[in-house]
Amino acid sequence: MFIKNAWYVALMAKDLSDKPMGRKVCNESIVFYRDAQGVVQAVEDFCPHRGAPLSLGRVVNGNLVCGYHGLEMGCEGKTIAMPGQRVGGFPTIRTYGVMERHGFIWVWPGEHAPDPGQMPQLDWADNPQWAYGGGLYHINCEYRMMVDNLMDLTHETYVHGSSIGQPEIDETPCVTKVDGDHVTTSRFMHNIEAPPFWKMALRGNGLPDDQLVDRWQICHFTPPSHVMIEVGVALAGNGGYDAPDDKKVSSVVVDFITPETETSIWYFWGMARKFNVHDQALTQAICEGQGKIFSEDLEMLESQQRNLLRCPDRKLLNLGIDAGGVQSRRVIDRYLALEA
Amino acid sequence: MFIKNAWYVALMAKDLSDKPMGRKVCNESIVFYRDAQGVVQAVEDFCPHRGAPLSLGRVVNGNLVCGYHGLEMGCEGKTIAMPGQRVGGFPTIRTYGVMERHGFIWVWPGEHAPDPGQMPQLDWADNPQWAYGGGLYHINCEYRMMVDNLMDLTHETYVHGSSIGQPEIDETPCVTKVDGDHVTTSRFMHNIEAPPFWKMALRGNGLPDDQLVDRWQICHFTPPSHVMIEVGVALAGNGGYDAPDDKKVSSVVVDFITPETETSIWYFWGMARKFNVHDQALTQAICEGQGKIFSEDLEMLESQQRNLLRCPDRKLLNLGIDAGGVQSRRVIDRYLALEA
Amino acid sequence: MFIKNAWYVALMAKDLSDKPMGRKVCNESIVFYRDAQGVVQAVEDFCPHRGAPLSLGRVVNGNLVCGYHGLEMGCEGKTIAMPGQRVGGFPTIRTYGVMERHGFIWVWPGEHAPDPGQMPQLDWADNPQWAYGGGLYHINCEYRMMVDNLMDLTHETYVHGSSIGQPEIDETPCVTKVDGDHVTTSRFMHNIEAPPFWKMALRGNGLPDDQLVDRWQICHFTPPSHVMIEVGVALAGNGGYDAPDDKKVSSVVVDFITPETETSIWYFWGMARKFNVHDQALTQAICEGQGKIFSEDLEMLESQQRNLLRCPDRKLLNLGIDAGGVQSRRVIDRYLALEA
Repeated sequence: MFIKNAWYVALMAKDLSDKPMGRKVCNESIVFYRDAQGVVQAVEDFCPHRGAPLSLGRVVNGNLVCGYHGLEMGCEGKTIAMPGQRVGGFPTIRTYGVMERHGFIWVWPGEHAPDPGQMPQLDWADNPQWAYGGGLYHINCEYRMMVDNLMDLTHETYVHGSSIGQPEIDETPCVTKVDGDHVTTSRFMHNIEAPPFWKMALRGNGLPDDQLVDRWQICHFTPPSHVMIEVGVALAGNGGYDAPDDKKVSSVVVDFITPETETSIWYFWGMARKFNVHDQALTQAICEGQGKIFSEDLEMLESQQRNLLRCPDRKLLNLGIDAGGVQSRRVIDRYLALEA
Repeated sequence: MFIKNAWYVALMAKDLSDKPMGRKVCNESIVFYRDAQGVVQAVEDFCPHRGAPLSLGRVVNGNLVCGYHGLEMGCEGKTIAMPGQRVGGFPTIRTYGVMERHGFIWVWPGEHAPDPGQMPQLDWADNPQWAYGGGLYHINCEYRMMVDNLMDLTHETYVHGSSIGQPEIDETPCVTKVDGDHVTTSRFMHNIEAPPFWKMALRGNGLPDDQLVDRWQICHFTPPSHVMIEVGVALAGNGGYDAPDDKKVSSVVVDFITPETETSIWYFWGMARKFNVHDQALTQAICEGQGKIFSEDLEMLESQQRNLLRCPDRKLLNLGIDAGGVQSRRVIDRYLALEA
Repeated sequence: MFIKNAWYVALMAKDLSDKPMGRKVCNESIVFYRDAQGVVQAVEDFCPHRGAPLSLGRVVNGNLVCGYHGLEMGCEGKTIAMPGQRVGGFPTIRTYGVMERHGFIWVWPGEHAPDPGQMPQLDWADNPQWAYGGGLYHINCEYRMMVDNLMDLTHETYVHGSSIGQPEIDETPCVTKVDGDHVTTSRFMHNIEAPPFWKMALRGNGLPDDQLVDRWQICHFTPPSHVMIEVGVALAGNGGYDAPDDKKVSSVVVDFITPETETSIWYFWGMARKFNVHDQALTQAICEGQGKIFSEDLEMLESQQRNLLRCPDRKLLNLGIDAGGVQSRRVIDRYLALEA
């Protein structure tokens, strides 16, 4: 069960060049390509002639040409031409709302008219005061299991013990708030030692890594399944989250969770940071560190998914730490009810 | 849905030595072996004792011996002997009509009596005026999708652009004729440049590769699912298809499409040629070139198959270029109706 | 269909150190770990919080800690603690009877109270007069197919022709006896040449390998699915099975067949020998030889399983040589009926 009338990240913009690319989003097989103006288009990945995937074709003069028999598909889902054929009566194929924004290709897999107003606002994107690096993982788990994972960071202590986990996370209660469709789970830790990943970031911002810090985690869920997490540490006694920029390292963990099928996701992860933004070596180091950390979730989520598929009737516990995930699922359920 | 009472190629004759070989044809698991006289026999690949595949066994004195407990199976499907057992009451297993001919092992997977008269006549086989080379691919697609592929060569322009494709194929209409069970689709192109594969063949026959040529493609379908394609180029102005042998290079593309299951095939491909027949290096070069070309169809066919399995209710288009495939399917349907 | 109220080997004891290990036995997903006293415990491999497999966690102070959010599970299946949570109301998970004995970890997957009296007595285990070596294979076949395999050694002639097979096995009838739950199939061969594996063993015990021998095979089945096979050769004319120790080489082939699912097993194989017991190089050589021999059964059993799944209605033959397997299946059926 997905919210289908919503914007999902389908691709990183840099990955779509002059070749078409196929990707399944919310069970829809979609082919993405750039037209003659470089504008991204998205249509069903199914040639109306014999069913070949259009993503195996090529783009010629901004039109998508099937790689089997040369049918030329237009961005409206109507066949434009085919060698030796009159194509007027050819059936149309589905088109999808698609937008390139903030470095990503976004798609609207549902039947309703795509609503540009629902495109998320990302302060850190296209903003010279921020730097960004990220990657993509394919994970065999239901998308809400990843929402749960990200809206409850107590798992860092156990899954990511060597990088960002630390016992103080467990010991500090989190607070979950709901404001309409926006769910927030926050945790503030004071006068603690920074864990290894944050020591690296402190050094990357020219700050000492051997002083006590204040640390924060503020997880934001918005539908359909985006999670942005404000994270950072400030040298202790400078105001924590509100410390001046030269006393802290502050980032946004970016998580676009795109359902592929009922039990698999495309997980676009990244980190936007507001310090030392021109240091590309630092961007690379952070990206590698984060990639390693997020790969640690993979085995856990896929094993958990197998366990849950094996025991579908088992009721799980919803504890205080799960409030972020639970409230996010309620928002999703509300949208699903509207679509039903 | 297969025609089961028909001859299919199961193996290349050279591949069946003194060991049994198992192969599934039209969903029948069959073991092939040579008896004491070297004559090929085919029985069910299932030992009546405990169900072990007989193809894991060996051939002793021309009988098939199960590799698990030594049951000795005869070519009539009756157990001949087993150490320490009286075998008179053992259940028989199925036998299959089988013939070695033209360098292939042919099998008749149906229940009716095998009809030697239905064995295809191949002018080029066992004929010193022709040379032959070929190979075998396993492809996960329904057998009729490969028939469609071969009875409509416009795909060469798109799938095989670097070897045998050229725009003139698209621009030249093809003509499809039906004569009883025999479907023919022909295309004749005049005064064109030869594509790379044919330039190589021209050189292989001591002809210049920089002159305009006439090119022909005559696809012949016969049931159950054999496609022979007369192909070639002649130096332009010498009569094309009817040009004398020293002005042309002329071949038959051989395609025996053997269904394995409803969604997979054994694809025996090859080329028989009527020029420079003693040049084994040329045979090898053509075989490699053709193997590369046919491997380009593999990804397309398997992707198309996945798309069609995902959208089983979708109606496909039958255009003029598809007439060869459409008419071939009608022949198949007529046989299927007879078997039903 | 498994006997669930019985002891099965789950692990080799040496493989369970300070980390938890997950293993599926009779369709039950179980996690094994050692508590603070080193005593093995076994509970369901399912965290009651969010369904993560506990086997991905760690052992802390002898308790199992979930690797996702730190839930601490006790050996009674009750949650002991979880950071920031009151755990009194948490649902319990299943626990399993478990024992470490004879170098193995045994588990009782059923619902009844585990019965220590059913633990098999193994004369050769924990006995300085015997040496033991063995290994573990995962095989995709139903467990009773492996019981059949081991209770009818005529297959040695065909499957293991280069090591322990010889024609005299086929030529010598076997005798099957049933004594309650204990099924025995015996075969005694006299004045034969020792096959290669036994020549190696004779040399390993300082005996000549070029004399005729008497050879014996006595297969013992006991429920749920254990097969012990007394095997050996004695220099001919010294009493065979009853020959003095310095005239023979005598071993027990150890086979613990643990169902994983309906169509897969964990196969714990080994050999206990009563000669030259301190020669570890010999133990190693025997283990390697036996590992190679048992790997020859793998392809046969998995192929047979696929054939049987394809033809589920086919009746198999039960011959004299199958009496051991047939009688063993009757014992199993009797237990299954009791459990139903």
